[in-house]
Amino acid sequence: MSEAFDAVDVIRAKRDGGEVPEDALRWMVDAYTRGYVSDAQMAAFAMAVLLQGMTRAEIRVLTDAMIRSGERMSFAGLGKTTVDKHSTGGVGDKITLPLAPLVASFGVAVPQLSGRGLGHTGGTLDKLESIPGWRAALTNAELTAQLQDVGAVICAAGSGLAPADKKLYALRDVTATVEAIPLIASSIMSKKIAEGTAALVLDVKFGSGAFMHDLDRARELARTMVELGTDSGVATTALLTDMDTPLGLAIGNANEVRESVEVLAGGGPADVVALTVALAREMLALAGQPDADVEAALADGRAMDAWRRMIRAQDGDPDAALPAPRETHTVTASAAGVVTRLDALAFGIAAWRLGAGRARAEDAVVHAAGIDLLVKPGDRVTAGQPVFTLSADDPSRFPRAIQALEGAWDVDAAAAEVPETRRAARLVRERITA
Amino acid sequence: MSEAFDAVDVIRAKRDGGEVPEDALRWMVDAYTRGYVSDAQMAAFAMAVLLQGMTRAEIRVLTDAMIRSGERMSFAGLGKTTVDKHSTGGVGDKITLPLAPLVASFGVAVPQLSGRGLGHTGGTLDKLESIPGWRAALTNAELTAQLQDVGAVICAAGSGLAPADKKLYALRDVTATVEAIPLIASSIMSKKIAEGTAALVLDVKFGSGAFMHDLDRARELARTMVELGTDSGVATTALLTDMDTPLGLAIGNANEVRESVEVLAGGGPADVVALTVALAREMLALAGQPDADVEAALADGRAMDAWRRMIRAQDGDPDAALPAPRETHTVTASAAGVVTRLDALAFGIAAWRLGAGRARAEDAVVHAAGIDLLVKPGDRVTAGQPVFTLSADDPSRFPRAIQALEGAWDVDAAAAEVPETRRAARLVRERITA
Repeated sequence: MSEAFDAVDVIRAKRDGGEVPEDALRWMVDAYTRGYVSDAQMAAFAMAVLLQGMTRAEIRVLTDAMIRSGERMSFAGLGKTTVDKHSTGGVGDKITLPLAPLVASFGVAVPQLSGRGLGHTGGTLDKLESIPGWRAALTNAELTAQLQDVGAVICAAGSGLAPADKKLYALRDVTATVEAIPLIASSIMSKKIAEGTAALVLDVKFGSGAFMHDLDRARELARTMVELGTDSGVATTALLTDMDTPLGLAIGNANEVRESVEVLAGGGPADVVALTVALAREMLALAGQPDADVEAALADGRAMDAWRRMIRAQDGDPDAALPAPRETHTVTASAAGVVTRLDALAFGIAAWRLGAGRARAEDAVVHAAGIDLLVKPGDRVTAGQPVFTLSADDPSRFPRAIQALEGAWDVDAAAAEVPETRRAARLVRERITA
Repeated sequence: MSEAFDAVDVIRAKRDGGEVPEDALRWMVDAYTRGYVSDAQMAAFAMAVLLQGMTRAEIRVLTDAMIRSGERMSFAGLGKTTVDKHSTGGVGDKITLPLAPLVASFGVAVPQLSGRGLGHTGGTLDKLESIPGWRAALTNAELTAQLQDVGAVICAAGSGLAPADKKLYALRDVTATVEAIPLIASSIMSKKIAEGTAALVLDVKFGSGAFMHDLDRARELARTMVELGTDSGVATTALLTDMDTPLGLAIGNANEVRESVEVLAGGGPADVVALTVALAREMLALAGQPDADVEAALADGRAMDAWRRMIRAQDGDPDAALPAPRETHTVTASAAGVVTRLDALAFGIAAWRLGAGRARAEDAVVHAAGIDLLVKPGDRVTAGQPVFTLSADDPSRFPRAIQALEGAWDVDAAAAEVPETRRAARLVRERITA
């Protein structure tokens, strides 16, 4: 790191489509983190990466340099296999909530270091903070103890993991360089690798409510991350899953917790159950239990037990009432037919405008705000039938949320119904492995 | 300008290869100049421009936006035609010195708002400051009066012209985005158009000592600038000229003034004379004098008269002795043959290391430092014959200058001599007009 490179040379090499030598790339990340390379220089570099790409070797070096910018955790002393899951984010994506205790109920450690929501996709910590008493911040000692005792932990990622990524992510956000696959992959994977998990399952979403709208780009991102995990010694599998329509029926915070608990109780919407089961199977396969009977653990209460222990370990009360909305507004169908479309992005934005999400990192979310779907694409509706309910703490929130939903759902009188189980079976589109 | 745009949208449009709408592009330049768009955002935008290009319409709007960031001069009240010249910069390029008075001797106003040198290419103002008493800074009133009286003015460009360009140029320099043709063209042309000249001749150089090493890139830049001048109402012609070897025999400051005066006295190296005459003809053609006898004005002293009046008008003494070097070092040929190569870039760097140029904008130059060539490519030398003399104010300057010249010139025993006139005739390679 002490050798002197010139940022202009590094930017130029990438600009001209070349491969940046390992030592120069490591220097660039380190010097940027320390402030010797300016935001302007890193922004030009990020744009060059977006337009010229990076080789597999460059992505590995970039990721490793970001990992080395901060602390690196280790669960080697646990005496348990660790498996983590990461979702690229979607609308109504509460899967981490039932998934972590479900997998932990098989004796596997699941350290889910999570974030808060920003924009139209919700944050796992925001959802869990609907539960009275529950706290997101754990010390490393508490985290380790809970992994040992309960197996499942969902908590805030410490600020010490990959600080270079934090700085670079904030820069990408304002310079139209978020969409570069090498930068997305290294951002996600640097934190997961630094966290010290032995294995990782990625839920890479595509469709209107996902970060990647099209399947090809999502597949490229998934492959890049699977390669990167593999190259870094983390056994990694990815599922490509559909995010054209919200997951489940609840979009918000408290209502998503409620839906998660239904799944843990052996019920819940078929799509949420299907995705939870599919991801649990992948995680358990990586943990050496390819034949685990995942459905049984949901049906017989083992997963629910793990959930209750997990919530209690973080001072939450699993039996407490969740916050209820002060105001609700129900939207009805104007004509009879089958719902053919229910756009994830629009419903995500509407829930966000109702107060379920935040516009700025320092904003608070309204835990009882959000949307409850009463029907999903494939369901038949009659004229005047309620189709979804908006919840907020202030009725002034409704008009802009309703505006976001204009043109966001279709009812077709001539379309055929699609059974819930068939829809759920189409959710996981592809599986990517090393 | 009051309408709100989002820098991220503007960057994204260019990143994705689209055309940025006129109002958005104008806003981007204005907001950057005022500091609402950050250096990081402009750096990402500049990299996107470098890699995705800009349409002719975008380049025109960008240039106009940079012009509008500052003051705009006008010579409309002069009652004389104004013609300016701009060179993209080369080694030993003192052409402005004889050219401005030569063209002015035909009754044309030549406002040469010039800069100082940085790096291996010298600056016109640095060269003229070798003349005792001469001052570069003129008020607008002095500039206008001198254009009226003498016709020729070479002075420092005021800081009020295109401040957006100044800010953007400094940013490009540290972000590897200097080489973008739309940005080079708009940078050069915004200042020339803001200056208010009616016509402009561009000397676009290619070769080792030029900013553009290859002819194709130089041609693309020349075409872009000719289109831009034409679109902005400035009659513009460009010559593509060879900069593989230094122009003339003098590289430095005082020695370049001496060589310029030789040309004005009807002598001087054939290449300097040829290029001065070619550019003067283009300038006079744009000023409505296509048949002006340029050589006669050099031969009969009219150009020299204009030079002396020009220097005196800026408090310089045209008869004063120029600074002489304290130390000289002569390099001789080790074998007999014909000089086949004398690399412009290496000689530019050597002269710079001798003190003729500056590394930082705030450094002073040594006026007597530089290199005098005793032979040029095409000349025959004998073993032991002096080939060039290095000058400096301190002998400690010589070793690093000599190091720069290692491998920078070739003598071939089998090569044929090339007469000076034939070399000079090959200097101007192409002519680009609207």
